[in-house]
Amino acid sequence: MGYAAPVKDMMFVLKELAGLDQVAQLPGYEEATSDVVEAILEEAAKFAGGVLAPLNFSGDQEGTKWHDKEVTMPAGFKEAYSQFAESGWTALDCRPEHGGQGLPRLVSAAVREMWKSANMAFSLCPLLTNGAIEALELCGSTEQKQMYLPNMISGKWTGTMNLTEPQAGSDLAAIRSRAEPQVDGTYKIFGQKIFITYGEHDMAENIVHLVLARLPDAPEGVKGISLFVVPKFLVRADGSLGDRNDAWCVSIEHKLGIHASPTCVMAFGDSGGAVGTLIGKPNEGLKYMFIMMNAARYAVGLEGLALSERAYQQALAYARERVQGRAIEGSAAPVAIVQHPDIRRMLMTMKAQIEAMRALAYAVASAHDTAFHHPDAAERQRNQAFVDLMIPVVKGWLTETGNEIAYLGVQVHGGMGFIEETGAAQHMRDARITTIYEGTTGIQANDLIGRKVAREGGATLKLVIGLMESTVAEVDKAGAELGDIGANLKKGIAALAEAGTYIASKYGADVRAVSVGAVPFLKLLGIVAGGWMMARAALVARARIAEGETDPFYATKISTAVFYAAHVLVAAPGLAQVVIAGGASGLAIPEDLL
Amino acid sequence: MGYAAPVKDMMFVLKELAGLDQVAQLPGYEEATSDVVEAILEEAAKFAGGVLAPLNFSGDQEGTKWHDKEVTMPAGFKEAYSQFAESGWTALDCRPEHGGQGLPRLVSAAVREMWKSANMAFSLCPLLTNGAIEALELCGSTEQKQMYLPNMISGKWTGTMNLTEPQAGSDLAAIRSRAEPQVDGTYKIFGQKIFITYGEHDMAENIVHLVLARLPDAPEGVKGISLFVVPKFLVRADGSLGDRNDAWCVSIEHKLGIHASPTCVMAFGDSGGAVGTLIGKPNEGLKYMFIMMNAARYAVGLEGLALSERAYQQALAYARERVQGRAIEGSAAPVAIVQHPDIRRMLMTMKAQIEAMRALAYAVASAHDTAFHHPDAAERQRNQAFVDLMIPVVKGWLTETGNEIAYLGVQVHGGMGFIEETGAAQHMRDARITTIYEGTTGIQANDLIGRKVAREGGATLKLVIGLMESTVAEVDKAGAELGDIGANLKKGIAALAEAGTYIASKYGADVRAVSVGAVPFLKLLGIVAGGWMMARAALVARARIAEGETDPFYATKISTAVFYAAHVLVAAPGLAQVVIAGGASGLAIPEDLL
Repeated sequence: MGYAAPVKDMMFVLKELAGLDQVAQLPGYEEATSDVVEAILEEAAKFAGGVLAPLNFSGDQEGTKWHDKEVTMPAGFKEAYSQFAESGWTALDCRPEHGGQGLPRLVSAAVREMWKSANMAFSLCPLLTNGAIEALELCGSTEQKQMYLPNMISGKWTGTMNLTEPQAGSDLAAIRSRAEPQVDGTYKIFGQKIFITYGEHDMAENIVHLVLARLPDAPEGVKGISLFVVPKFLVRADGSLGDRNDAWCVSIEHKLGIHASPTCVMAFGDSGGAVGTLIGKPNEGLKYMFIMMNAARYAVGLEGLALSERAYQQALAYARERVQGRAIEGSAAPVAIVQHPDIRRMLMTMKAQIEAMRALAYAVASAHDTAFHHPDAAERQRNQAFVDLMIPVVKGWLTETGNEIAYLGVQVHGGMGFIEETGAAQHMRDARITTIYEGTTGIQANDLIGRKVAREGGATLKLVIGLMESTVAEVDKAGAELGDIGANLKKGIAALAEAGTYIASKYGADVRAVSVGAVPFLKLLGIVAGGWMMARAALVARARIAEGETDPFYATKISTAVFYAAHVLVAAPGLAQVVIAGGASGLAIPEDLL
Repeated sequence: MGYAAPVKDMMFVLKELAGLDQVAQLPGYEEATSDVVEAILEEAAKFAGGVLAPLNFSGDQEGTKWHDKEVTMPAGFKEAYSQFAESGWTALDCRPEHGGQGLPRLVSAAVREMWKSANMAFSLCPLLTNGAIEALELCGSTEQKQMYLPNMISGKWTGTMNLTEPQAGSDLAAIRSRAEPQVDGTYKIFGQKIFITYGEHDMAENIVHLVLARLPDAPEGVKGISLFVVPKFLVRADGSLGDRNDAWCVSIEHKLGIHASPTCVMAFGDSGGAVGTLIGKPNEGLKYMFIMMNAARYAVGLEGLALSERAYQQALAYARERVQGRAIEGSAAPVAIVQHPDIRRMLMTMKAQIEAMRALAYAVASAHDTAFHHPDAAERQRNQAFVDLMIPVVKGWLTETGNEIAYLGVQVHGGMGFIEETGAAQHMRDARITTIYEGTTGIQANDLIGRKVAREGGATLKLVIGLMESTVAEVDKAGAELGDIGANLKKGIAALAEAGTYIASKYGADVRAVSVGAVPFLKLLGIVAGGWMMARAALVARARIAEGETDPFYATKISTAVFYAAHVLVAAPGLAQVVIAGGASGLAIPEDLL
């Protein structure tokens, strides 16, 4: 049940597909040379495999414990967290001004993938802290930054995001928590928040809650939400911890997965009011949340990839070790099940999609870095458009695929997969939340077809399709060596283009019917973008082999790309048909007759 | 979290698609008239909804408890089982000779679907008992039948099937349990069996274990396996219970799902030998197992359908009740989420596939009855061939689809779906075993392409395709009213025919590569057969409407069939491509480079 980070494939993607060298030339990222990044990845791999991975199963089995408004983490988590913070991992891509290491998102994406593969429940604590850090970095006052950022970036304190309320899940317009201004310029916060990840725990000295609430005179709906910082312990002017704030964890949820991550119900202000300060301007809380949303959605997409990798490693190890049944063509003795064609198909389905997801995710991280740091405005804008288009795909497609892969991981194990001690089922349980939190797949897909594709008439999508077509042209030049990659990618792109044109042209006229195809379109874009990445990978591998490279990694990469084209890309035309012709029948039956 | 059996759709399928009236004309089934069957279904629905369904969630949460070689069932299970047996449900399709009611499998299929929807963990006890009854009915001696069958059919005693051993999961050739003949004609059984469902529990007076073991002089492999009956308590000549036999549950598994179904490790003979008697002839145990295998696989297929129905009912109720977000085209106030197009798409995806699965499953049950009871040998043979072809599809496709549907059920619930108290996650956890036990999907698919399609050169498949084509011709005559049903079914059939021809012609020459496409082919056949059934349903509904029927059930059935064609059938050509062109790439990478 161990985990060995796939550093080789990560470095291949970083360098050959996601442009690490170009990112390292952006102002501020000069230190992120290939050698430095590889050294960072090797160190992270040691920590992930040696410290976090061994706590994954025990953490799941033991779970978190709530007692008298406090949460006890499973054995080993507190020590692991201290070590994590001491090693500087919390500061990786934070800005240098308050102690961050300022590395590109491209690098932190690879490192984060490792934490999530090794121990997803653990990884959520630094993930949420990073979200809170980013909010304070972008929108906090100088005083707030000085008060909170150094200790959050060092990992001494952790952070949370308090959005959801019982009546306000995906719909933040319905938020009711309120903030009363005090004479000293602070606010008293009242309200209950649910689904608060790491809202309470015993791994850090203080917890910095970011809380959405309404001011007394706030307009209704999303335009009346403000963002506040509400620490568990108030912080004195000298930086030391003061009184316990009126922010308490009143219960934790009993969940399907991520048992070692406390999901808290938080009560603010039950005993007089939780003291908080306003972040940025009144009534702009939602805007600040949206700034961070891309990062959060991207990070959850990585979870789909990361759990897939973990499930694959475990299934592969079992398939090599478990001897059962004769070979299908006959054999003198029973063989390891990895020899059985259907087991091989499942493992290849896992492997090929993992590599496609990784390539797409890292390419998006690279574009994100470029969008922030490139000196040329047009280049920044072009990359930001790509990121905006692809964020819902990274979130939606990687997590939906991650669930399928974790499911296959159980299947490879046969009956043992259903037994909790095996550990394969945990990945499936843990993965199940990823298509839901930070916006369900349906919400991602609505964002994709509405705000991303239809609003701009499909402009960015067309640009991306143009890039995909250039890759096809290169594959065509390469000839028969790359099998059906070119032919299947071409069909996939045609299906994507047709579906995209349909959405861009019909969305305004019949938004309901077009929206029935939203998730199928998201999957279509994911599958084709993944096929594009795998084709690019195959072209690079072919070039390296032509240069004399003999490492079988490269031939394997080509074979994996051929498999992806033959087994995954072929679903594209069917999905396009659903998008184009499936709207009316999705809505035909009135709700009372369903 | 209740369950209301879909009696209306069940009766529609029984009468209009599965030929209940024709089955009721078979010798021995004369009592199964439409009115009688409907009354049985109504009674079963009351028991399922009123007694079994309320214990489903509590049973999952409480689980079974092992203590000192005994298993305590969750609260309420023992009482529910007594009531179940007293009401005669255990005897439904057993032969009348020993107290059975002798109803057709077609009827018991519908009734069993209800037990499994209401409480899958509970349903496994009578399911296993039925398997043991069938084995004894078919292969037992007169003495064995008299000793065991009346009490098993009345439900006073339950039964188990003891096949698997740690080193022998899917591969029964590796079985090591042994049987030593005694001078009195009995045998002493020694060995350990794992994954024994209801191997021990407190709901019945006695448990009748059927055990696979080897005689001292038995040949190696599957040709040396014999079947024994080994009761928990020995039965005296007068039928009363005697000594406790040396057959003990030494532990139970900690599983992902079906927590209320004890999965036992059974130790036979640790204290001198478990007393058993041989069933049938020596070394023919595997043959007897194969006789029952179709029934067991069929029953597990029903579990996929049944859990889908339960997940659908729960998701639909939540979607109607949960108010969140504005309508996508704009609305004054938040709306119930059933109004959101993606929620509607998910619910329709569940509903359409459930109805297709039910129609296919019941049609196969009907053919099974006909194969047993039809006076004409050719008719029996024709129906048996259909059953043989379709059993792996019912097992494989219904359970894989059942997992997808239970997954969607969680997704409809959003964040609440991940919370165990909601109950949606339980269906997903429970469903996970169905693609594994009684032969994994891979094993079903190998059986389908090897023993069913390739061995006979695709003959039965071609006959079935012929029937499908007649349906298309009828749909074509019906005109535009049935939307794209005809066009999409035609494409699906063409894809199926092409893939089937490929398998039949290439299997002998390259069994490994063809087998990579086994599961995709099984899914292809399932999807197209489901589309065929839905097209037949739409034709019937159209005829009823033309006759003046105004019940919206019929228009809804047509809309559901149109949805199925537009959203599910369209995947067929892509699957055929995987079958035909995906073999080589599935095997290209050597196992050490995966």
